[in-house]
Amino acid sequence: MNINARIPVGVLGASGYVGQELMGLLVRHPGASVVFATAESAAGEVLEGHTLLKTDDAPLQRAEVVFSCLPHGVSGRYVRAARAAGRRTVDLSADFRLSDEAVYGLTEVARPRVAGAELVANPGCYPTAALLALIPLAQRGLIDTSREVIIDAASGVTGAGRSLKREYLFGEVAEDYRAYAAGNTHRHLPEVRATLAREGGFSGDLIFTPHLLPVKRGILETIHVPLAQPLDQAGAEGIFDAAYQGEPCIQITRGRLPSLRDVVYRNRVALGVVPVANVQRPRLTVVAAIDNLVKGAAGQAVQNMNVMLGIPETTGLVC
Amino acid sequence: MNINARIPVGVLGASGYVGQELMGLLVRHPGASVVFATAESAAGEVLEGHTLLKTDDAPLQRAEVVFSCLPHGVSGRYVRAARAAGRRTVDLSADFRLSDEAVYGLTEVARPRVAGAELVANPGCYPTAALLALIPLAQRGLIDTSREVIIDAASGVTGAGRSLKREYLFGEVAEDYRAYAAGNTHRHLPEVRATLAREGGFSGDLIFTPHLLPVKRGILETIHVPLAQPLDQAGAEGIFDAAYQGEPCIQITRGRLPSLRDVVYRNRVALGVVPVANVQRPRLTVVAAIDNLVKGAAGQAVQNMNVMLGIPETTGLVC
Amino acid sequence: MNINARIPVGVLGASGYVGQELMGLLVRHPGASVVFATAESAAGEVLEGHTLLKTDDAPLQRAEVVFSCLPHGVSGRYVRAARAAGRRTVDLSADFRLSDEAVYGLTEVARPRVAGAELVANPGCYPTAALLALIPLAQRGLIDTSREVIIDAASGVTGAGRSLKREYLFGEVAEDYRAYAAGNTHRHLPEVRATLAREGGFSGDLIFTPHLLPVKRGILETIHVPLAQPLDQAGAEGIFDAAYQGEPCIQITRGRLPSLRDVVYRNRVALGVVPVANVQRPRLTVVAAIDNLVKGAAGQAVQNMNVMLGIPETTGLVC
Amino acid sequence: MNINARIPVGVLGASGYVGQELMGLLVRHPGASVVFATAESAAGEVLEGHTLLKTDDAPLQRAEVVFSCLPHGVSGRYVRAARAAGRRTVDLSADFRLSDEAVYGLTEVARPRVAGAELVANPGCYPTAALLALIPLAQRGLIDTSREVIIDAASGVTGAGRSLKREYLFGEVAEDYRAYAAGNTHRHLPEVRATLAREGGFSGDLIFTPHLLPVKRGILETIHVPLAQPLDQAGAEGIFDAAYQGEPCIQITRGRLPSLRDVVYRNRVALGVVPVANVQRPRLTVVAAIDNLVKGAAGQAVQNMNVMLGIPETTGLVC
Repeated sequence: MNINARIPVGVLGASGYVGQELMGLLVRHPGASVVFATAESAAGEVLEGHTLLKTDDAPLQRAEVVFSCLPHGVSGRYVRAARAAGRRTVDLSADFRLSDEAVYGLTEVARPRVAGAELVANPGCYPTAALLALIPLAQRGLIDTSREVIIDAASGVTGAGRSLKREYLFGEVAEDYRAYAAGNTHRHLPEVRATLAREGGFSGDLIFTPHLLPVKRGILETIHVPLAQPLDQAGAEGIFDAAYQGEPCIQITRGRLPSLRDVVYRNRVALGVVPVANVQRPRLTVVAAIDNLVKGAAGQAVQNMNVMLGIPETTGLVC
Repeated sequence: MNINARIPVGVLGASGYVGQELMGLLVRHPGASVVFATAESAAGEVLEGHTLLKTDDAPLQRAEVVFSCLPHGVSGRYVRAARAAGRRTVDLSADFRLSDEAVYGLTEVARPRVAGAELVANPGCYPTAALLALIPLAQRGLIDTSREVIIDAASGVTGAGRSLKREYLFGEVAEDYRAYAAGNTHRHLPEVRATLAREGGFSGDLIFTPHLLPVKRGILETIHVPLAQPLDQAGAEGIFDAAYQGEPCIQITRGRLPSLRDVVYRNRVALGVVPVANVQRPRLTVVAAIDNLVKGAAGQAVQNMNVMLGIPETTGLVC
Repeated sequence: MNINARIPVGVLGASGYVGQELMGLLVRHPGASVVFATAESAAGEVLEGHTLLKTDDAPLQRAEVVFSCLPHGVSGRYVRAARAAGRRTVDLSADFRLSDEAVYGLTEVARPRVAGAELVANPGCYPTAALLALIPLAQRGLIDTSREVIIDAASGVTGAGRSLKREYLFGEVAEDYRAYAAGNTHRHLPEVRATLAREGGFSGDLIFTPHLLPVKRGILETIHVPLAQPLDQAGAEGIFDAAYQGEPCIQITRGRLPSLRDVVYRNRVALGVVPVANVQRPRLTVVAAIDNLVKGAAGQAVQNMNVMLGIPETTGLVC
Repeated sequence: MNINARIPVGVLGASGYVGQELMGLLVRHPGASVVFATAESAAGEVLEGHTLLKTDDAPLQRAEVVFSCLPHGVSGRYVRAARAAGRRTVDLSADFRLSDEAVYGLTEVARPRVAGAELVANPGCYPTAALLALIPLAQRGLIDTSREVIIDAASGVTGAGRSLKREYLFGEVAEDYRAYAAGNTHRHLPEVRATLAREGGFSGDLIFTPHLLPVKRGILETIHVPLAQPLDQAGAEGIFDAAYQGEPCIQITRGRLPSLRDVVYRNRVALGVVPVANVQRPRLTVVAAIDNLVKGAAGQAVQNMNVMLGIPETTGLVC
């Protein structure tokens, strides 16, 4: 890369946890140059050497690629403005994830479409882990759709953003653990369902239950998959090895299950499997781990930008 | 209670996390008086005012009730010695939990048998929560045994005891989260299965996956129950209300799910339910929370002692 | 105590961390009966079996002793109303700590005055630990006032209350540690100074620097005392032993320094000392630990109530 | 840098926390190529793509620069072997820090000497922060040596290494905080003293008290400096600004004090100051923060290697 040819990029909504992470990645990215960053209440503050502008004052025309880390429901309007200004855009909100207007940017699955995309909807954190775990099995018809796929997921608190709610105070979260949005009411479920249907032809029942972990970052999903046919350890690992051969951001933890330590501060999904013993009908437990702020948000956004720009996919990332 | 009539009790293996918790409860129990406490490497140290003896030197005959917090595999021998000395005994290890020699001391379910027991096998921490969640549903035939009951459980590190292993160092556990003994290989599974069969007539498939939480104490189990017939929120809560009416140590969290904060430092199981939406066949998610050191170990042991002695069941306990 | 003779007590401002802790202590106190509890935004919620009233609706006349856990600046008005209604009052706010209207309720130092008090100003958390560490040395003239006493204190986040500020979010506090109110600007400093002058005749320089710890509860203060004459380990411990002989809520940790684990969930100050080696002029390091919510607030308030009522001082408390 | 000209480097003792951090930095360093890494009990395991050799089998001659992360007392022997093999060596242990055989590698202070060094003794974590805070003041004669400099330091647990001791178990450290090696008995004190005398001409009294923080990484030192003359905020900041102008790894936090969040995962010292009010003789509080594993160990070792090799000093580092 020629340092004189850094691509100008802009970040809308840079002051939240995802925005801060993205700024950190972009200011150290050898092929990008941050030309603006915006915020609302934090406008005027300095982040990674950039004074935050009001989002309404963003000079969209100065950037070649615009990232939006604005909240769901707010992001859409600004993303449309960036598109109207002719900017290629990566939206980290949920606003376009179920829309035909955008390419759903699960990089490993949608790489060719991302390469040509004008608008990428960056996947949600929980869906990124769940989908990379389930798509290989669904594509091969290995999931018994007469029984439920059960996803128990746990996330660090930065997954909830920096919003000021009592339930996210240290005094409430430390030494605690709890489920939330149980009973299949979390807004990420339709995103998982739709993508699993589109990419894997899967239409069975899913039960998704997120939990809040007393850690800063990281997601671990324990996924119980009903199998259409038995798989042993080597067979199950072989499927993931084959599906993800050569993928720089996917690690198959052979012979053990991944933990948050395998993935935090990295743009990586770690996947491990174990067949379930002592049951009458075959089940496979798949554990998927990511850093919610990196592969689950800002890192995957940079990975997608790299693909869009045709530069090496892991530029500026630790995988 | 007459303070002059405190029952003499002894504790074998008092220096681990469970032993320390039990000592704390017993020295403040208005109906008990600790007459000895033992340890191995910590012998000679002072705990709650008692100098720890070597376990082999325990004056078993001085106690009316003997508790054993010795490790699995070691406890059995000493428990048999206490029984041979004619002492009523509560064994907190796993050594008698699957044996006909002992009454399985899940207090709320086995109260009359505990009252007359000479030897009580105190239940494991994970099984206590799982069984109190599942038995009411199993007894009423509400579980569809053609699909799996899936139990995803998470425990604080004191559940692993004070054993000196690298994986339990602060530098390894903090900011981490992981599954262990996945694939139905945890030693608590047979205890859950056997008790659920005996008390609830249940013989379907169970998948039990424990996880290690970066907290000191507390267990939360998210239990996905396949239902033989649909249940709405009120109907599901009604079943637990009816099953546990008047139980001082069981809390049904109506309209919300419990978290660790509901139970830590208390001899309590908190249970909450939510029916699963957006699935074709009915499922109920039950969440059970306990303090692994209290209702999951030392507290339930005291509760059982109270039942054995015929004194009010919650004496010396905060429920 | 006759259970029929429980003293009726009321709690103003019961929904914060201190208020919740106090309610937990009072509902389990064998000599007290909670007759009302109040809150503002949490009015209508149920806490320890009591529906929280609006503070303006508190039936002050129904209680014999009124506790106020209201915020500084707000508490004074309600405390005066309770006094006007003839109720004995314990104010946990700072509003009367520097006032002649109240007895400063550092129990071990002011016991006879507390016994006869109509209004007790319960000490601040940091001052409780600092004063119990310094008063015995000051009273004996052992502090060299030509050099500074330096107090570095660290508190868990419940010391800041449940106020909704970004700086207290889990995502900000976890894995962090920082000083605040440095440079002698903390509002507890005048309380320490005034009490140390009054009780110990000390008028030298103090430097007090609090820090925010990523724990829920507990305060540890490392206090560097310039000595007027050298003291060895035994001599220093002897001074504290003599000063606090027979005190049920003070623990001298002989030969080691205390940590938070010695004190959390207990109404106890733990004190340890170590002479400083390798310096030309003598210094003693004193470490004091308390639970900020118990001996630093709610527990000491109950201890003071017990003294006021003439019942055993540790009734309802774990020391 | 020419990627074909990567310098071959080797790491002795790569499996501890410092060794792992160093390996992570070196495998991503654009000017270095790891040619061997060693361990003892972890020999045979794979770390960052390198199979760990036994330390006695290290092919020292293959590396141009050898790093030793071996334990104190063990390292010296292997460092001498590397020197005997003619390798330039950076020793991260304490074995040569007080020795004339090595250059003491506090980079910002000793840059020219490091550039020409054959053997660099990488500073301890606590001393790095303390010395960078105190040397500018000592060099200008601003410290009143008739009163003590008091350093209260707090470190995350990785500072203690991965040694298997009960006191470092999660169940002991979480929710706890304690002083250790109090009374001026910590082995880092002579290192601070000797360097402060050599570089700053300081020979007054120092009191150094470390504490164990329940965090994974990071050191914060609150340093109370007796001033020979008063300094206001701007004056104090001006001294540090002047001393460290242009230094890429030192941040002066103007108008606020630093916290761990300013420095973790970065090769940076953050320094902030506040004059002490309400005292009769002038004091300045200086707060210094570093990541014990980065600027306090592995990062500073890489910084020193960069200086030794004459490549840009922050190559491969995030400052």
